[in-house]
Amino acid sequence: MRQLIEALYPICRSITGPGVRATLDLIGQQIDLDRPKLPTGTRIHDWTVPQEWELTGAYLSHAGDDTRIVDAAESNLHVVNFSTSVDAVMSLEELRPHLHTLPDRPDCVPYRTSYYHPAWGLCLTDNQLNGLAEGDYRVRIDTHHRDGFLEWGECTIEGSTRETVLLTTHICHPSLANDNLSGIAVLTALAKFIASAPRRLTYKLLFIPGTIGSIGWLATNPEAAAAVTAGLVITGLGDTSDFTYKRSQQGDATIDRVLEVLLRDRGQGQLIDFTPYGYDERQFCSPGYNMGVGRLTRGVHGEYPEYHTSADNLGFIQDEALAESLELLTEVVESLESNRRYVNLAPYGEPQLGKRGIYSSVGGAIDQKSVEMGYLWVLNQSDGLTDLCAIASRSGLAYSAVATAADRLKDHDLLGDPK
Amino acid sequence: MRQLIEALYPICRSITGPGVRATLDLIGQQIDLDRPKLPTGTRIHDWTVPQEWELTGAYLSHAGDDTRIVDAAESNLHVVNFSTSVDAVMSLEELRPHLHTLPDRPDCVPYRTSYYHPAWGLCLTDNQLNGLAEGDYRVRIDTHHRDGFLEWGECTIEGSTRETVLLTTHICHPSLANDNLSGIAVLTALAKFIASAPRRLTYKLLFIPGTIGSIGWLATNPEAAAAVTAGLVITGLGDTSDFTYKRSQQGDATIDRVLEVLLRDRGQGQLIDFTPYGYDERQFCSPGYNMGVGRLTRGVHGEYPEYHTSADNLGFIQDEALAESLELLTEVVESLESNRRYVNLAPYGEPQLGKRGIYSSVGGAIDQKSVEMGYLWVLNQSDGLTDLCAIASRSGLAYSAVATAADRLKDHDLLGDPK
Amino acid sequence: MRQLIEALYPICRSITGPGVRATLDLIGQQIDLDRPKLPTGTRIHDWTVPQEWELTGAYLSHAGDDTRIVDAAESNLHVVNFSTSVDAVMSLEELRPHLHTLPDRPDCVPYRTSYYHPAWGLCLTDNQLNGLAEGDYRVRIDTHHRDGFLEWGECTIEGSTRETVLLTTHICHPSLANDNLSGIAVLTALAKFIASAPRRLTYKLLFIPGTIGSIGWLATNPEAAAAVTAGLVITGLGDTSDFTYKRSQQGDATIDRVLEVLLRDRGQGQLIDFTPYGYDERQFCSPGYNMGVGRLTRGVHGEYPEYHTSADNLGFIQDEALAESLELLTEVVESLESNRRYVNLAPYGEPQLGKRGIYSSVGGAIDQKSVEMGYLWVLNQSDGLTDLCAIASRSGLAYSAVATAADRLKDHDLLGDPK
Repeated sequence: MRQLIEALYPICRSITGPGVRATLDLIGQQIDLDRPKLPTGTRIHDWTVPQEWELTGAYLSHAGDDTRIVDAAESNLHVVNFSTSVDAVMSLEELRPHLHTLPDRPDCVPYRTSYYHPAWGLCLTDNQLNGLAEGDYRVRIDTHHRDGFLEWGECTIEGSTRETVLLTTHICHPSLANDNLSGIAVLTALAKFIASAPRRLTYKLLFIPGTIGSIGWLATNPEAAAAVTAGLVITGLGDTSDFTYKRSQQGDATIDRVLEVLLRDRGQGQLIDFTPYGYDERQFCSPGYNMGVGRLTRGVHGEYPEYHTSADNLGFIQDEALAESLELLTEVVESLESNRRYVNLAPYGEPQLGKRGIYSSVGGAIDQKSVEMGYLWVLNQSDGLTDLCAIASRSGLAYSAVATAADRLKDHDLLGDPK
Repeated sequence: MRQLIEALYPICRSITGPGVRATLDLIGQQIDLDRPKLPTGTRIHDWTVPQEWELTGAYLSHAGDDTRIVDAAESNLHVVNFSTSVDAVMSLEELRPHLHTLPDRPDCVPYRTSYYHPAWGLCLTDNQLNGLAEGDYRVRIDTHHRDGFLEWGECTIEGSTRETVLLTTHICHPSLANDNLSGIAVLTALAKFIASAPRRLTYKLLFIPGTIGSIGWLATNPEAAAAVTAGLVITGLGDTSDFTYKRSQQGDATIDRVLEVLLRDRGQGQLIDFTPYGYDERQFCSPGYNMGVGRLTRGVHGEYPEYHTSADNLGFIQDEALAESLELLTEVVESLESNRRYVNLAPYGEPQLGKRGIYSSVGGAIDQKSVEMGYLWVLNQSDGLTDLCAIASRSGLAYSAVATAADRLKDHDLLGDPK
Repeated sequence: MRQLIEALYPICRSITGPGVRATLDLIGQQIDLDRPKLPTGTRIHDWTVPQEWELTGAYLSHAGDDTRIVDAAESNLHVVNFSTSVDAVMSLEELRPHLHTLPDRPDCVPYRTSYYHPAWGLCLTDNQLNGLAEGDYRVRIDTHHRDGFLEWGECTIEGSTRETVLLTTHICHPSLANDNLSGIAVLTALAKFIASAPRRLTYKLLFIPGTIGSIGWLATNPEAAAAVTAGLVITGLGDTSDFTYKRSQQGDATIDRVLEVLLRDRGQGQLIDFTPYGYDERQFCSPGYNMGVGRLTRGVHGEYPEYHTSADNLGFIQDEALAESLELLTEVVESLESNRRYVNLAPYGEPQLGKRGIYSSVGGAIDQKSVEMGYLWVLNQSDGLTDLCAIASRSGLAYSAVATAADRLKDHDLLGDPK
């Protein structure tokens, strides 16, 4: 994952343009990736596909002095993302409204965007700004807005059913490591894991520009959207904070219950309730869709100081954190695969497990937490309506113990599918 | 409000009789007031309209000594309300069962009633009682029970819909300031506020004798009762305790949710659960009606020491408390007016607020608690079933922010009425 | 109860055989008892009726030395219940897997069973085991497995309705006093109490071998099982721990709510949630039945050190505890009898209780917790759906106060049956 992140880091991404294409090219070298695209001007629900944007250079210097005080060649964060072009000499006073800094973090460059409101601007550290003397400055931003395409990456892994798990990550941020090269790298690795075995569920993995990308996909894929039964927006998975799971709008969707149980079993993570502010869960949980889609991050956007600043760099993310994030997500996939509702086929009293050899035969001592308790709970609760995750939750047993018990009970023809 | 209270204070009210009429006359000088009346003997549900009652004088003296130890001319609390007449000389021992005091508050005269069980009695301070020597006493109570009418005041303010808000206060207590001249004064002022602007909802304000009055109104107004969608019993609003909202029997009626959110927003008040003991909410929440009617007081009956004693006098109530109570009630009215369910008309993903100029255009920074969050929450939750109050409750946003957001979204045709 | 327990204590019970029959004979001397029986080999749901088992003797001695180190004549716990026969000389090493002890309780003999997996074994104290020198031992167990019957006791007390309360206790344990001679004795006494008065409900009291007995009854009594509306598994009621009520799988069944309120009223007991591990509630709460059957014990199986050891002897149980357990169960019976849903026949406002003489006539003072509050609550809540137990729970009033209030309201024709 680290290699992919390092390759992606220098690219100047935005919601459209060559940065997006270069990013998808690199992902596509690792996994099968469709590349749908919609032309500029296409109506997608309430939105319209914008032009493509390209940054070719930008700098700030004293008027009549070529020394660059701020230079986009050093970091693409220095230019407001989607900025219009400018080439002008102006006083510091005139310039100031176009200069964005972080007074609270005076040595960090902020990340700023202006996608849908034409404007130009530069971002720099507050220390740099405070070092500027009164006088005239030359500001030059060379960007290009051209008709083109909104483009995204889509990896589909077919399962034996059309029931679909939606996994998405945004790809529109420039040189920011945790938000969201970590998400891109983890989702790419997860795609390989999912594809490594036959699956019951179908998986749809989207590498999309934030907001406009998810709306583009939703607007052009109504059938696929309707087949989604669970999903996760994945981002910010490389920092060393504990996991944060944000519930779907429904609050008790399958994905909500699965994450709650898996994090409980790991003794990790915090659960937070849905709010309509954040990443693309805003779109998937809008009332016209109201999907059971939650969000998995480590730290929460806006709550760690490196968020949306130049401090979210390659040094901020840790390989161990990325690996642990991937591990949790593979557990999520395995759990969604196994998390089914069953009907107890011997529902009148308990079936005699002893004669089937799957229960200890000398009575009088039982480890309350053993897998044998899993048999009893799964048999007791399998009314065709209660899934294994609900059983793990109610029983306090680890999800893995419950799933193992269900597998063995199925092997002995004690569980069937609901009608 | 203070003026009206001072004018009402000396009047000897009861559930019927000249005191009620004089009270309604004074209220009727301030607001439009219908004066329905039911003749003595009328069956109203399980009850029968009683006779009218009038007190013309009462005293206690030593036999053969005209010095009045207790005199109703000093306070109408000295006579058990609805007392029968008596003119007799008797020993202290014979007299004692007819003398009511408060041993715990030895310098206060209690308020006692005996409406439906003919009896005579005097109320005095415990200090007075303890000062009585053995011997013979003359007791005289001059009251009149006559066939007449049960009468109440009814102020109707028509709105554009028949959906009705019921606001009631009891008018049967004699010289007690907080319970309930404060309620009468605040409801009178609230009537003026409601009438000062066009309203969506219809308002029915009742100034009624406790129990028998609400039963009289319910029995004779089945259609109006059926149109009630929210209501409040208002009483005890002049003392300096914090607000107390008592939930309706339903517990999650509109009025319950509105008061919960408004008190949360003000950082004031305690919420208590319904019990079938208290004021007229007992009648409105009886199973045959089960209206969404709660109760707003400051201190709770029986829990402040001045309750139902001569200490509940004009000095006990504060103008600031009355004004604050009125202010909260105007917020209740405004909130009931605006608290509607909407359908998001652009429900597939988020609508593009930026292009409508109602959303900040430079991304990357948002005040989580700003009115912009109101847009997001209202859009996300407006499924035609969820009202603005529920959105304020779930989001943690102030009701006013949510209502403002909804108004602006309506202006931009983003919200419609549910089918 | 103590007498019956002492008479039952020496008998070597198991799930079948002469010990069961002798036990039922003694119970049958006290109450009317049907004695259904199913022949060995009968299929009952997923199970098959086993053979009968009889123990005629067992001992362990040094080879060539008649001194008995362990002797079943001293305690029937020394033989694994349902053990096969053996007569052999073997080394301590060969013997060891067949010897069961409690290293944590080195002076207690454990209770062990092997009903459905043929095996032989002896139980002894860990001190005894540690005192055995290397060398050859003679082990002899004389048991008999013969075709015969699964037998249980069934006491039916008909009420005026077919609605049935199921009360069961297991009878398969040998010389263990609390688990479960206490249950047998208390249930026998409770049968006498129930039969002492006419009842609205029908009672079915089962004295059954654990697991196989409840499955046998369920398999052969589908109609009676379907008529069960509440029930309790009763066991371990002689120790001095506080009561423990284990909820049914439903969690909010009538029996759950009744026990919750009665224990609250007594200020006693802990409530624990259902798990599919324990006594015969496992069978009654299996998904094919899912009865509203909970479990009442004092200490919880596995949580007190005497459990399933020779320390659960006649000295471990206390007469006062048995008596208190019986008292609580009589309250349960009385509460189930009276716990009905009513319809308020005067539901429009409150009925005038004063004129009926069941309400204090001088207003102004009421004891919030008096039975008068019971009138108000029962009238307010009697919508035909809410039972008296729910009213006691919501109101905080004692169940007995609510039931008394309901009785008096019925006497005054203020309550009727739901349609």
